[in-house]
Amino acid sequence: MGEDKLIAKMREVLPVGGNTLVWSGDDCAEIATTTGSFLISTDVLVEDVHFRIDWSSAFEVGVRAAQQNMADIMGQGGIVTALVVSLVIPPYLSEDWLCDLVAGFAAAVAPTGAGVVGGDLSRGAQLVISVTVCGESVKTPLPGSILRSGARPGDVVAVAGTLGYSYAGLQLLQRGNEQPEFALFKQIFKTPQPPLEMGPLAALAGATALMDVSDGLSSDLARLAKASQVSVLLSKTALSAFTAPLEAVAVSLGRSALDLVLNGGEDHALLACFPAGIEVPSGFTVIGSVEAGGAEVWLDSEKLSESGWDHFA
Amino acid sequence: MGEDKLIAKMREVLPVGGNTLVWSGDDCAEIATTTGSFLISTDVLVEDVHFRIDWSSAFEVGVRAAQQNMADIMGQGGIVTALVVSLVIPPYLSEDWLCDLVAGFAAAVAPTGAGVVGGDLSRGAQLVISVTVCGESVKTPLPGSILRSGARPGDVVAVAGTLGYSYAGLQLLQRGNEQPEFALFKQIFKTPQPPLEMGPLAALAGATALMDVSDGLSSDLARLAKASQVSVLLSKTALSAFTAPLEAVAVSLGRSALDLVLNGGEDHALLACFPAGIEVPSGFTVIGSVEAGGAEVWLDSEKLSESGWDHFA
Repeated sequence: MGEDKLIAKMREVLPVGGNTLVWSGDDCAEIATTTGSFLISTDVLVEDVHFRIDWSSAFEVGVRAAQQNMADIMGQGGIVTALVVSLVIPPYLSEDWLCDLVAGFAAAVAPTGAGVVGGDLSRGAQLVISVTVCGESVKTPLPGSILRSGARPGDVVAVAGTLGYSYAGLQLLQRGNEQPEFALFKQIFKTPQPPLEMGPLAALAGATALMDVSDGLSSDLARLAKASQVSVLLSKTALSAFTAPLEAVAVSLGRSALDLVLNGGEDHALLACFPAGIEVPSGFTVIGSVEAGGAEVWLDSEKLSESGWDHFA
Repeated sequence: MGEDKLIAKMREVLPVGGNTLVWSGDDCAEIATTTGSFLISTDVLVEDVHFRIDWSSAFEVGVRAAQQNMADIMGQGGIVTALVVSLVIPPYLSEDWLCDLVAGFAAAVAPTGAGVVGGDLSRGAQLVISVTVCGESVKTPLPGSILRSGARPGDVVAVAGTLGYSYAGLQLLQRGNEQPEFALFKQIFKTPQPPLEMGPLAALAGATALMDVSDGLSSDLARLAKASQVSVLLSKTALSAFTAPLEAVAVSLGRSALDLVLNGGEDHALLACFPAGIEVPSGFTVIGSVEAGGAEVWLDSEKLSESGWDHFA
């Protein structure tokens, strides 16, 4: 059936809830409290699916689990306030290893001021790390979420953070590449560094749409375009700010830097749309613009397919 | 090291968080929002650790996952507002089976008015269901949580819900018992029915302490006594309201009904302490009283050990 269809079928039976301001389908849900609201999102990481313990230290696995979850709060313009984490623990992991994982998780969360406020442990066959992150939107009135559906014709499209580093790092790890000049890419794959503080900054600056870039720029832009019923026009020239640092590693991997930037996921950069005429906050790089209708993504005069930019074309 | 020690070691490194009103250690944490608060708790269920798919249907597994999580909100006196759920999906489960699980989860949540507002799917070796539940306390001022540490000398101790049914059901399932008069016990093991509405009811009635009975009455009472620095005096006569429905099944299992009531976990009954002199809400049965000091649990004149009532004595 495929994951998207399975999720769609499951969503049909799920209750929306009387306090739900923003339901499943964006980076977070937003839930009303008596006098306010909170954001919530969950992500599960499975050994050998999302990480490998022969590539990453326990500490790094913990950092990654925290960062990729906190990126969802960033992607809706919120501030992280609390996380809970459950571990399913296989017999071959030592207690020291698990404590290092938790230390990495804690180290990634602590600078945000959020708490790690609960958890659960179970034994099991395979390491599973399940994280739920909560946050607070900085906008009023409620819902304060900045959604992927808010882009408007005339907006500029901008990105904060890195693109393609994580995917390059994965390729390097798979090939056993040890070149020191490429170490950063591997590090970003193992411990992504989403620009968490840029989420609320963009929201307060007037962003119309926000989104965590988790699956790759072109496919996440296609989702934003579809949700907002607009088209996005990317500029190759503007993207050079993102392709330039990847030129050397792209040559080494036999790919193009543009391919890595457009299709590489898991850097957890922040994608934002801002109304034309407002000053785009420092830390964002404008990469294109929003056009009326179509729900398409264009790279200069080339229309990208729904599955992303075809790097074989 | 043991689970409790491992958790204690992990807690040492975890940040409490600037918005945390109640941290890890009770049934839920309570997190401040700009103008209010929310409750949060998480539980993970692992195939063959917490449930068996040859005993329970997919729908029943889904119900159980929702109920045991929502019981934690009840256990702090809150109303359930939102849940997220992640599934790690092994190759041997069909999409129909998974949709039935989600339908059971949804069916358990829907009557509360809460939403199922997000989730995540991954492939993996073994079915893992990770749930986070959020809620709203009904008390002001904040924190509105009713904690296990609030019991005071002179309080009465009361329980709403069933005790020992789930453990009796587990024993029946393990023995392949098919006697129709015992079907309810097996059903409660497969799909516990925590008295969710009694949590906020008890809170509003003035409960001093609340707790989800998840591990068994005697061990959970020992935790409450320790947290509150009080002793609890149980009355065998008063407990007969809970032992009476178990007499027949206890005989069949070769145990005493009192053993099942004191030591059987996972019914997710609600344990509450109320100040003497207030009317205990309908639905609660008084089982004992709170005495000053000692952090002990007594059954009439018999002191219970920390590990619960010794059914071999």
